[in-house]
Amino acid sequence: MYDQITAMAKEIFERSVARRRDLHRHPETGWLEMRTSAVIAGILTELGYEVLTGSNVLDGEARLGLPSEEVLREHANLVRESWNTPLTYLTEEMEAGYTGVIGILRCGPGPVCALRFDIDALGVLEDESSGHRPAREGFASLCPGVMHACGHDGHTAIGLGVAEVLMSVKEQLHGTVKLIFQPAEEGVRGARAIVSRGHLDNVDYFIGTHLAPLDGPDDGAVTPATYGSLATTKYDVIYHGAPAHAGGFPEKGRNALLAAASAAMGLAAIPRHSEGASRVNTGTLHAGTGRNVIPDYAKMEIELRGETTAVNAYMEDSARRICEAAAAMYGCTCEMICMGAADSHHSDLALADRAAALIERELPDIRVSSVRNVRNWGSEDISLMMNRVQSHGGQAICMRNMTRMEAPQHTADFDFDETVLEEGIRIFSAVTCDLMQDETCKDTRQRGENK
Amino acid sequence: MYDQITAMAKEIFERSVARRRDLHRHPETGWLEMRTSAVIAGILTELGYEVLTGSNVLDGEARLGLPSEEVLREHANLVRESWNTPLTYLTEEMEAGYTGVIGILRCGPGPVCALRFDIDALGVLEDESSGHRPAREGFASLCPGVMHACGHDGHTAIGLGVAEVLMSVKEQLHGTVKLIFQPAEEGVRGARAIVSRGHLDNVDYFIGTHLAPLDGPDDGAVTPATYGSLATTKYDVIYHGAPAHAGGFPEKGRNALLAAASAAMGLAAIPRHSEGASRVNTGTLHAGTGRNVIPDYAKMEIELRGETTAVNAYMEDSARRICEAAAAMYGCTCEMICMGAADSHHSDLALADRAAALIERELPDIRVSSVRNVRNWGSEDISLMMNRVQSHGGQAICMRNMTRMEAPQHTADFDFDETVLEEGIRIFSAVTCDLMQDETCKDTRQRGENK
Amino acid sequence: MYDQITAMAKEIFERSVARRRDLHRHPETGWLEMRTSAVIAGILTELGYEVLTGSNVLDGEARLGLPSEEVLREHANLVRESWNTPLTYLTEEMEAGYTGVIGILRCGPGPVCALRFDIDALGVLEDESSGHRPAREGFASLCPGVMHACGHDGHTAIGLGVAEVLMSVKEQLHGTVKLIFQPAEEGVRGARAIVSRGHLDNVDYFIGTHLAPLDGPDDGAVTPATYGSLATTKYDVIYHGAPAHAGGFPEKGRNALLAAASAAMGLAAIPRHSEGASRVNTGTLHAGTGRNVIPDYAKMEIELRGETTAVNAYMEDSARRICEAAAAMYGCTCEMICMGAADSHHSDLALADRAAALIERELPDIRVSSVRNVRNWGSEDISLMMNRVQSHGGQAICMRNMTRMEAPQHTADFDFDETVLEEGIRIFSAVTCDLMQDETCKDTRQRGENK
Amino acid sequence: MYDQITAMAKEIFERSVARRRDLHRHPETGWLEMRTSAVIAGILTELGYEVLTGSNVLDGEARLGLPSEEVLREHANLVRESWNTPLTYLTEEMEAGYTGVIGILRCGPGPVCALRFDIDALGVLEDESSGHRPAREGFASLCPGVMHACGHDGHTAIGLGVAEVLMSVKEQLHGTVKLIFQPAEEGVRGARAIVSRGHLDNVDYFIGTHLAPLDGPDDGAVTPATYGSLATTKYDVIYHGAPAHAGGFPEKGRNALLAAASAAMGLAAIPRHSEGASRVNTGTLHAGTGRNVIPDYAKMEIELRGETTAVNAYMEDSARRICEAAAAMYGCTCEMICMGAADSHHSDLALADRAAALIERELPDIRVSSVRNVRNWGSEDISLMMNRVQSHGGQAICMRNMTRMEAPQHTADFDFDETVLEEGIRIFSAVTCDLMQDETCKDTRQRGENK
Repeated sequence: MYDQITAMAKEIFERSVARRRDLHRHPETGWLEMRTSAVIAGILTELGYEVLTGSNVLDGEARLGLPSEEVLREHANLVRESWNTPLTYLTEEMEAGYTGVIGILRCGPGPVCALRFDIDALGVLEDESSGHRPAREGFASLCPGVMHACGHDGHTAIGLGVAEVLMSVKEQLHGTVKLIFQPAEEGVRGARAIVSRGHLDNVDYFIGTHLAPLDGPDDGAVTPATYGSLATTKYDVIYHGAPAHAGGFPEKGRNALLAAASAAMGLAAIPRHSEGASRVNTGTLHAGTGRNVIPDYAKMEIELRGETTAVNAYMEDSARRICEAAAAMYGCTCEMICMGAADSHHSDLALADRAAALIERELPDIRVSSVRNVRNWGSEDISLMMNRVQSHGGQAICMRNMTRMEAPQHTADFDFDETVLEEGIRIFSAVTCDLMQDETCKDTRQRGENK
Repeated sequence: MYDQITAMAKEIFERSVARRRDLHRHPETGWLEMRTSAVIAGILTELGYEVLTGSNVLDGEARLGLPSEEVLREHANLVRESWNTPLTYLTEEMEAGYTGVIGILRCGPGPVCALRFDIDALGVLEDESSGHRPAREGFASLCPGVMHACGHDGHTAIGLGVAEVLMSVKEQLHGTVKLIFQPAEEGVRGARAIVSRGHLDNVDYFIGTHLAPLDGPDDGAVTPATYGSLATTKYDVIYHGAPAHAGGFPEKGRNALLAAASAAMGLAAIPRHSEGASRVNTGTLHAGTGRNVIPDYAKMEIELRGETTAVNAYMEDSARRICEAAAAMYGCTCEMICMGAADSHHSDLALADRAAALIERELPDIRVSSVRNVRNWGSEDISLMMNRVQSHGGQAICMRNMTRMEAPQHTADFDFDETVLEEGIRIFSAVTCDLMQDETCKDTRQRGENK
Repeated sequence: MYDQITAMAKEIFERSVARRRDLHRHPETGWLEMRTSAVIAGILTELGYEVLTGSNVLDGEARLGLPSEEVLREHANLVRESWNTPLTYLTEEMEAGYTGVIGILRCGPGPVCALRFDIDALGVLEDESSGHRPAREGFASLCPGVMHACGHDGHTAIGLGVAEVLMSVKEQLHGTVKLIFQPAEEGVRGARAIVSRGHLDNVDYFIGTHLAPLDGPDDGAVTPATYGSLATTKYDVIYHGAPAHAGGFPEKGRNALLAAASAAMGLAAIPRHSEGASRVNTGTLHAGTGRNVIPDYAKMEIELRGETTAVNAYMEDSARRICEAAAAMYGCTCEMICMGAADSHHSDLALADRAAALIERELPDIRVSSVRNVRNWGSEDISLMMNRVQSHGGQAICMRNMTRMEAPQHTADFDFDETVLEEGIRIFSAVTCDLMQDETCKDTRQRGENK
Repeated sequence: MYDQITAMAKEIFERSVARRRDLHRHPETGWLEMRTSAVIAGILTELGYEVLTGSNVLDGEARLGLPSEEVLREHANLVRESWNTPLTYLTEEMEAGYTGVIGILRCGPGPVCALRFDIDALGVLEDESSGHRPAREGFASLCPGVMHACGHDGHTAIGLGVAEVLMSVKEQLHGTVKLIFQPAEEGVRGARAIVSRGHLDNVDYFIGTHLAPLDGPDDGAVTPATYGSLATTKYDVIYHGAPAHAGGFPEKGRNALLAAASAAMGLAAIPRHSEGASRVNTGTLHAGTGRNVIPDYAKMEIELRGETTAVNAYMEDSARRICEAAAAMYGCTCEMICMGAADSHHSDLALADRAAALIERELPDIRVSSVRNVRNWGSEDISLMMNRVQSHGGQAICMRNMTRMEAPQHTADFDFDETVLEEGIRIFSAVTCDLMQDETCKDTRQRGENK
């Protein structure tokens, strides 16, 4: 079966490259992945998957950092009218910011395996010079200021390749596969809405990945496990006060600018935590309307982080207390809107070892990193999915697939060596097939739940 | 009658000087005027006045800035054991901080006249050099660090002289006189408790005074009216948090020092008021127990002022909001204890004119200032008494009696020319007698109340 | 002569209305009064005045709050291409923000009289409903978001009418008239550059005015004097720090947002001044680029005010110290750009009385307010001109001309009764002619200077 | 030789207990160890050591947190007059705060070994109940509020026992021993002055220890190495401003209280460092003299810490910048006095292994912890000595000697099982003798320096 996977991955490589480049030309930021979702839904449907979209994928209320209706409407118009979107698969819900797709393949009794691929782009202006391959070869972003600069176009193309492979070997599998195409990973905004909809509640094995540069701490083509991303919460904090003429009636104002300033200083002073690193930042502050008016409005974008989920919760509690007290100090009101959230995560080393052993045995040309479990210093909302799976007794890993990168992620020059697409398809497919040989896993997990 | 007053004032001048010097030797700060009260009660009783002391003078709950029980007890011991206190008149209530005395002289139907004399000393260390007359002549303070440095010993001696004069002419008077000897004027702490006990509720005419230097804005020996002292409120603000080892568990502390620091900065930033001058000061801040402990305690002494009672109320409301919000910001609790309060005041010009005319007619050797109503920039809790009288339709003035001073009030070298005692006795006595010629006033005032 | 003035003002009234409405349709904010300046220069030139424009009017370096070159260029294009601008009189300097015009009429020896008219519009979106006369009658603003909402179009029309009248009576005058059409009064930005160019240095008599509503404290059609506008200084305060990833390297950032927040709090806490009212406001604060980046840039718009020029200087000194210290605290740099400045002002009552007497005698149908000198609570940079004139021994008044207003100044519905134009032309012309009867004044002033 | 050491330690055990109890009765805090130094100097002299005291031990300028002259004088009087101090060995320099003693034993060519014992007590009020053995057995502190509550009396007794042992085996040794009895370890104040005097510059081997409880992470009687104590710096920060009457002339004050408050808030907001844990605390703040006076004085006690010396240096640099900027913001001056300093430390594992091997081989009844190198989370100025030794190519270890403790260190109930004295004497003596078998070491170290 593993030779069949390798052969098939080779066969669909060119198609995968084309898919990645099509996505690269049509980048869509979080909750605007309308065309992207329609493309994915079309391919999965045509392959024969049971396909969930819209509110079947997401708990609408749990979407964090949703753009305004106006922004959604404008992008929907673009997608509907100007881009070669497969309109058959574009739904009204997608146009209302219910993006993301889940493809389900049911193969009788056996474990439930979930694979996660994130699909959104970034607010980066892509390099248009000829030194940048996407520009030179004609697949650079059609949308100025939006770019797949983190490789999620590659993640999506891998996921679609895996969908092809698994469908072709489905007779040999036991259990259920869920291919989760997640929106709005940037800003850690999307995972919560999928978790909240219950899709991770019955998962036995969960696998995700991220493309990573060759020059990092990993010394192979794949590292089977990562851990330790910083738990984080993002808020928009809005202060409302009352305006007054600053010369005429200073006592009548309620000063939202000073409330925000006081909050920013208070946030910076949240005490360190003895149990691990913490972070806090007020990234932006915008307040006031005119020089001679007591400012009645202020908005801050803040973020908290913690080395553990508990440390982050401490930061978050402190921040809420401080922001509200700052409002009270200046007679203002304070509104805090959660714009993103992720936990710290850890991979199950038993599952990582099983994956590594499988790759070394069956895909011997792919080198596995000697360090099996690497620390991740960023934040990733895959943590919410992994923690949900693990809290029910399932096992989860977040891998890394290394590839040559032209420039760091999140920069205008970013591009990557597309051979990683073939490798990624092989690894995900092979590891999933290995897990789905075992009809009895499901029961084991359930016993875990009954304890 | 006025010649009789002048003659009698001359007669009792030496006695008045002796009284003033006895008080000067035995200075007592606010709520500790135990010996002073016993002395006053003794003289008034022996003169034949109806004498109120203790809880008959004061609403105990309304005493502001009361010293601790230990301080009261220590001073009571000193007074009882070491000073030549007239023990017959020293009461247990006086020893418990119920100081102040009211002497009442009832002369049948007619107006109610209240005269107010404040009796407390200051926390000033008196000059002991021979250049300072009290030291040279043997009547300097017996109590290091306490001194009659504002002239209240003189006020008291004038009040006692007036008591003698009025008793001697009582057959010629109609109505009732109240001689109010008020404790704890410094820090504006004492008047509230007398007002709250109701003593000003039926007063038709109210007269107070303060000694003032010759080199001020006043160009006579007496100015019949003053106005405009700043309304003020004094608070002690206390923060309680939680301690923690600053190196080991910084997240476990609740930082009272930072709560206080934040409050101090917020207080300084209370917006100006368009309707008049305002002031705010955090005069002291003491916090923390050790360098390596998160501070769990902080105490601030603050004061607010306003050109009008309304502006001061705005400052006070703002201060309460800020101090409480600062506590909330750092997870602490906040306690605010009112330590002093005074309003802005104004004198009734009709009464001032009547007094000025009487002095010019009957006491022609005493020069009345050409400016009849002078602004006072300090704070004085006589305002609370005047406002109560005026709110019921009565008339009130706060005068000034000018005298040569050796040094500014509130300094270690302060002393004054005692001839002002004779002048003061004459003015208070004459003006009071003039007002008590008029049997019908009382009714007029009551009609005012019925409107 | 005064009857001739009255007759002529009547004759040119319709023309004045037309001029005012033309200006109202083409409103231009501070330093963009390109068309306005060209129109004024055209009329004055055609009347025969010696006309100064551009750098002959202004010290370019002393222009406060100059817009960016891009804004200047865009408006120049509009003025040149789309509006019926008299291109003959439009100069390159005007297009570079050297706006404002001075017309000079020399009539031999005698005093120098300067009359000042401000010409700029406001950033207000004009009401376009039929309830608003300018909209109904077709002279509403052609430029959305810009409007003559303070009546400077009226001031300019009066000034141009006065130019006509004075030219027609020039044979009867002695001395020199300067008609100063000042740009950028809003935000108190323009006067400094005219004063700095020396135009007020030899002025004996200076007269300005402002339209005011009938329902204010003034009870006539004209009040000859005002005083007391708050001295003010406006700054843009810019902080530069260093960015850093807030999660990855918090210690590497230098936080401009916190520097600005600290400055805003410090500014609000500048102590009150015992010599008069003061004000401070941080009207706007904009900082930061993204939620997860330590902010390396912040900009605040602040203003200080003082009841006297000295109190304002205290506020300004304090603000400079605080803004710079806040930068130092966070390792940032701080740049403070003066965007506006005005002093407190007072009118010379001798000149006001002379003007009032002249009006009452020669223009008896125009009612002079019974209160001759009214307090102004706003800020006006005419103060800089008046103070310069007065510092050299000249006399200056700032009048008020009352008229019925449809809505408060600075609002979208503002309009005024245009009969004030005729009154204004008569008053300025008559008072100026009166002053220029006196050949000897100049010498008097110079004697004053020699003292 | 090791059997001889063991036998001798047993022999002097009772004497060691007596010495410890004598020190316990006469506790002296940092820089007041006058009697303690005289006692030590006496014993070492009588044993035949070359003894350094006073300015031969310390660089006087580098003493941190020295008490006032008055405090020094008072304690000197106590020591001289009331305690059974060996006056022969009490020097004038000791009485001036030059405490601490170094005993030197020269045994020809060979390595230089330095052993460090700290000698100061703490400001703790000792439990006087019979449940507390020192009280019950009559060796509790004679000085209320001062107590050997951290075991330095034990350290000193061990050091004196080691002095006896080494003197008795000196014929078998090569090289030089320095027994350093360090003052003022509490508050990390004393080591700098010894290091600055050069005593560590030629040291090849350095050994220190601290008593520790049995219930910590160590599972033996001795742990040969510790690492990682937090680097720290302690400052007193003093602000001077200018006073003013808060009601009368608020603009004339320069507010030291607000400068300190602003500094405290700024200090709390020093950004986290990505390279390790950091700490900051403003432990105390005292400011102002009266409620109605602008405060002209403020004092804060602060401390900074860092997981590495570099992180602490970052905290210290930030703190200096912030404290000075806060002064500038309020027009005050700022003085920062270093009151304590320690670095992070690490033990040389080669030396630790050698010591462990020696103990296991020669003192087999003493159990060595299985974890050879334990993290220390406190701060210890032994780090300054170790770093100096290591910077010259020498090796250093800071051990732990475990013993049963009745209560945590730094509490009123603290006491320890004195059998640890015998163990400590054996370990220090044996390890030192082992090192001093090797005549060639010195050369090795020098070679190290030449690399």
